[in-house]
Formats: sequence, structure tokens, C-alpha cells
Amino acid sequence: MPDRLGPALTAPIVDRLVIVGLGLIGSSFARAARRMNVARTVVAADASPSVRARVAELGFADVVAPDLASAAEGADMVVLCVPVGACGIVAEQMAGSLRPGAIISDVGSVKGSVVAQVQPHLPEGVHFVPAHPVAGTEHSGPDAGFATLFAGRWAILTPPEGTDPAATERVRAVWEAFGSNVEVMTPAHHDLVLAITSHVPHLIAYNIVGTAADLEEVTQSEVIKFSAGGFRDFTRIAASDPTMWRDVFLNNKDAVLEMLGRFSEDLTALQRAIRWGDGETLFNLFTRTRAIRRGIIELGQETAEPDFGRRKPEA
Amino acid sequence: MPDRLGPALTAPIVDRLVIVGLGLIGSSFARAARRMNVARTVVAADASPSVRARVAELGFADVVAPDLASAAEGADMVVLCVPVGACGIVAEQMAGSLRPGAIISDVGSVKGSVVAQVQPHLPEGVHFVPAHPVAGTEHSGPDAGFATLFAGRWAILTPPEGTDPAATERVRAVWEAFGSNVEVMTPAHHDLVLAITSHVPHLIAYNIVGTAADLEEVTQSEVIKFSAGGFRDFTRIAASDPTMWRDVFLNNKDAVLEMLGRFSEDLTALQRAIRWGDGETLFNLFTRTRAIRRGIIELGQETAEPDFGRRKPEA
Repeated sequence: MPDRLGPALTAPIVDRLVIVGLGLIGSSFARAARRMNVARTVVAADASPSVRARVAELGFADVVAPDLASAAEGADMVVLCVPVGACGIVAEQMAGSLRPGAIISDVGSVKGSVVAQVQPHLPEGVHFVPAHPVAGTEHSGPDAGFATLFAGRWAILTPPEGTDPAATERVRAVWEAFGSNVEVMTPAHHDLVLAITSHVPHLIAYNIVGTAADLEEVTQSEVIKFSAGGFRDFTRIAASDPTMWRDVFLNNKDAVLEMLGRFSEDLTALQRAIRWGDGETLFNLFTRTRAIRRGIIELGQETAEPDFGRRKPEA
Repeated sequence: MPDRLGPALTAPIVDRLVIVGLGLIGSSFARAARRMNVARTVVAADASPSVRARVAELGFADVVAPDLASAAEGADMVVLCVPVGACGIVAEQMAGSLRPGAIISDVGSVKGSVVAQVQPHLPEGVHFVPAHPVAGTEHSGPDAGFATLFAGRWAILTPPEGTDPAATERVRAVWEAFGSNVEVMTPAHHDLVLAITSHVPHLIAYNIVGTAADLEEVTQSEVIKFSAGGFRDFTRIAASDPTMWRDVFLNNKDAVLEMLGRFSEDLTALQRAIRWGDGETLFNLFTRTRAIRRGIIELGQETAEPDFGRRKPEA
């Protein structure tokens, strides 16, 4: 997959694009929209006055709206980039100002819960196309975003049954302009796939960093000093935004508990193999997991390079 | 910590340096020794004929020995870079050829077991200074090594009680020439610290990659496609050398089982918090783990850069 942005669009996809929540993802969305000429006007809305002030300084939006209702007025497309648990409230506050034909989308890491929260508030004639870009860093806030964050990454669309295909195609066009590869699936399947590829990995990274912090026999400074042995990679994941991740676990409870149950069962089997000196079981698993890594590198979601395929963010 | 090699030593630390096992670590050791003028003669010994042939082609050793006994003859320092489970056998095979005053060291990720395996074989007058460089990549073999692997990383020495301090100082001088910071501790404490900073992280990475591979509802290609959400970082760790890691777990059983028990206990508490919708417990942990990440960045074991502080290997 190409990991750079192509030339800007010759004609915008939408007139008035509203981005709600200017954190890492929202501010990257705004920067990418500006860079790729995706919208005639990019409007930023955020509940935090200090974030609004910073967005105005950074200058990647044409308008910084004072509140949600005025941001929503005349919008062609509204993208919710707030924590998953806040999507319902935001939709409720904007609903009265949305005009028929407007498209609502989001970027949440959970889709079933977002559909359940948002859909009841939307007036007749407003289209809802939930989306999830599988991209991110461990940094947060409007300064952390960059226009190429989504390039070469996947964006998953989960339109509920009965969604106007034309609305889905417009959202697809935006993500493709950002350099993403688009995949469409049901909200429920999305939540299952992401539970194993993202949610449970985050939970166990948070967990082991917490376990290490609570040890009595090993000092904190030793944990930090000798982290290069593997622990370090977990601390990067465990530095991700706490509010966003709390909401992910609370809103994807069933799939996360299901995957966590399997993980723990498998871990118990490994623990038993260690206790009883069963090297063959360990060796066989360790050999099998290498093949998956090769698959990821071959699919271009990763490189064998020491920089992990991460590029320096461009402005 | 500086992450580059300084100027080469004006005088070598040892005359005849023997490296047994030319994988990632052994071949990096040989390259660093050559680059830094640590030894007058670098001798490579490996049980595998194809590795010996490749080492001769790569040319980073002065001599490729045909067998262990002849490699050991006249050696001033022998460094075992074989999987932890093979250290005892290698020591036994070399013991008869070692001269008094020779120093034996190793690079194993477990220290208590290595001491127990190696020490009984060593003749009177031979010094044993176990070492563990906390550095590595997920790649294996003589082509994977590079001279700067240890620069800016920690090397832990665990001399058993009664070791001649002069021998410990010579081993320390070698690691310092490679750009490592040296720390001295007991074998038992090393094994506890590394269980949490390295061994358990590897085990859970292997485990989750295995769990993902066994799912029925989610296809392998979906796991690979959407790995950028967090899973990808685990697959890198789970691509590490299977033989090496099998031996680590079998040889650091007690500390690994102890840390694994704590990890599972903590994970069960998180699982319960998710099941009961206890967002505060999740948020508090996720906030606490960010501080540890900052400590690692401040201590120079990591950078905030998107390349993860990994540099391209130099030859």
C-alpha cells in the first residue's frame, strides 16, 4: 500500500465538513482534509475552550465553531472524533441543527455501541456511515495530528442495514483521498476483529505495565532501565489516551471478554508447559507465530525495517 | 546514553577472544570486538557447518575454528552466545582445553541456570563472569548482527560469589568498549528483574499471536490486515528466535511463574472491571501507566520518535 498522499483533489467531495473533537485523530482528519482539498470549508468543533484556542492557532481549520449546534448548521458531512462514550451526547446536541441529506460519520474504535448511541437521535433524511481508521500513535491532542496518519492504513466502514449506498460512497471517497484502503463490514464483525487485533492487546499492555509498577522485589528504576528486553514495546501502547481506551473497553464489553477468555485459557496452557518443562509445546507455538509476522510484513502493514515502518509525521 | 561507538581502543583488552555461537548476539559481539579493537584475534566457533561457512564469508572473525576444543586452546576470553540450555554442554566440551587465567563469559537472558550449568565444569584457575546484554532484535543468525547493537544499552554482569574482581573488570571493559552501561547484580535478582521486563512480555506476545491464529470467527487475513491497531507490536516480539526463548522459559521457571501469576491476577481484576462497567478502575490504571513510559523516555532507553529509537544497523 502506498504510504504517501497523492495530489490534492481537483474538486472537493463536500462543501461544509465539520469535525467534532480535535484530538490526534480529529486534527489529523482536518489536516488531511485541508491538504487533499476534500472540503470547501473545514469547520472544527470541540467542547474544550483550550483545544479550540489551540486549533485556531494551528490554523488547519477554516472555522472554529463556538458550539456544536452552530457547527452543525448547513453541514454536508459531520465526523465525530470524540471518545466512543461521548458519541451519543454529541449526536443528540447536533441533531436539531442537521439538514436532510447531511452525512454523519465517526472514527470510533467500537462500532456496535456507536450505532446504538447515535442512530436514535438522527432526524429523517440524515445518513449515518460509521467509520474506523485503523491508525494512530500513543500521542494525544491537536498538536499530535498529522496529515499522513491514514495513508497506507485501513479504514473500515460499517453502514447499518438500509444505509443509502451513495452516502457510503462519499465517505469512502474521503478515506481514499486520505490514502486509506477501505473495507466494509458489519458493526458486530468489526467489533470482534478489533477486539483481538487492538483492544485486547491494549488491555494486556496496560496490565503488564501496571503489574511491573506494583512489584516490591524489583524497583521502578530497574523496570525502566532494563525495559529494552521487550517491556518497552508494551509501555508505548500503554501510554495511549486513557479516556479513549476506557470507553473502548466499556463499549465493546462482550467481544473483549470473549477474546480475553481465550487469551487467558491459552496463557494457562503455556504456564503449565513451563511448569512441567514441556519445551516442545513452547517451541511449536514460538515457531508458528513467526509465520504471522511474515504475513504482516508481506501485506505492507509493517516493514522489516528497524523503524517499524513508522515515518516521521509530516505537518 | 550515547548510542554510537566511540573511537577504537588503542590497545586490545585480550589477546585471543573466542565467541561460541554466531547468531544475532554472537555475530554482533564479534563485529563490535573487531570494530573497537577489543581483541588481537577474534575466533569464531559454531556447531553448525553452514553458520561457520557464512561467518567465513562475512569476514568479521580472524579465525573460524573447526571445533570447540581447538577454539578454546590458548583463549584469554571465551564468550558463550548459544541458547541458555546449551551452555552446560559447551562448557563441558571446552573445559579440558582451557588454560588457567582464562575468563569465561556468556550473554544468556537467564543467569542462575547458566551459573549452575557452567560452573561445575570449569577447571581451577578459570574465571567465570556471566553477562547479559539487554539488547536484541527479532532477527536471528550471523547476517542479522551489527556492531552497534549494544551501544547505549545495558549490560548486566552477575559474577558468582568469590569471582576474582580483576576478571569482572576485564569483562566490564569489553562491554564499555561496545558502548554499553554496565550494572552488576546477583544472578537471582537478575532473573527476577528480567522475568518482568523481558520474559513475561515475550510469553504474552507469543500467546496472543497464537490466540489470534486459532480464532474461527475472525480470519487470519483480517488479523493481519488490521494489525496496525496494536497487535502488530506483539507480532514483532513473537517473531523472536524460538530455540532461544524456549530455553529462557525452561531455565527461568520460578521467576517467570511468579510474575505470570501476578500478571494473571491483575488481568482478572481488569476483566472484572470491564464486566461490571467500572470505568474508574480502568481510567486510573491507564493514567498510571503513562508515567512509566515517560520514565523510560527520560532515561534514554527509548525516544518519543516514531522510529522507536531504533536505528538502522550499521555493518
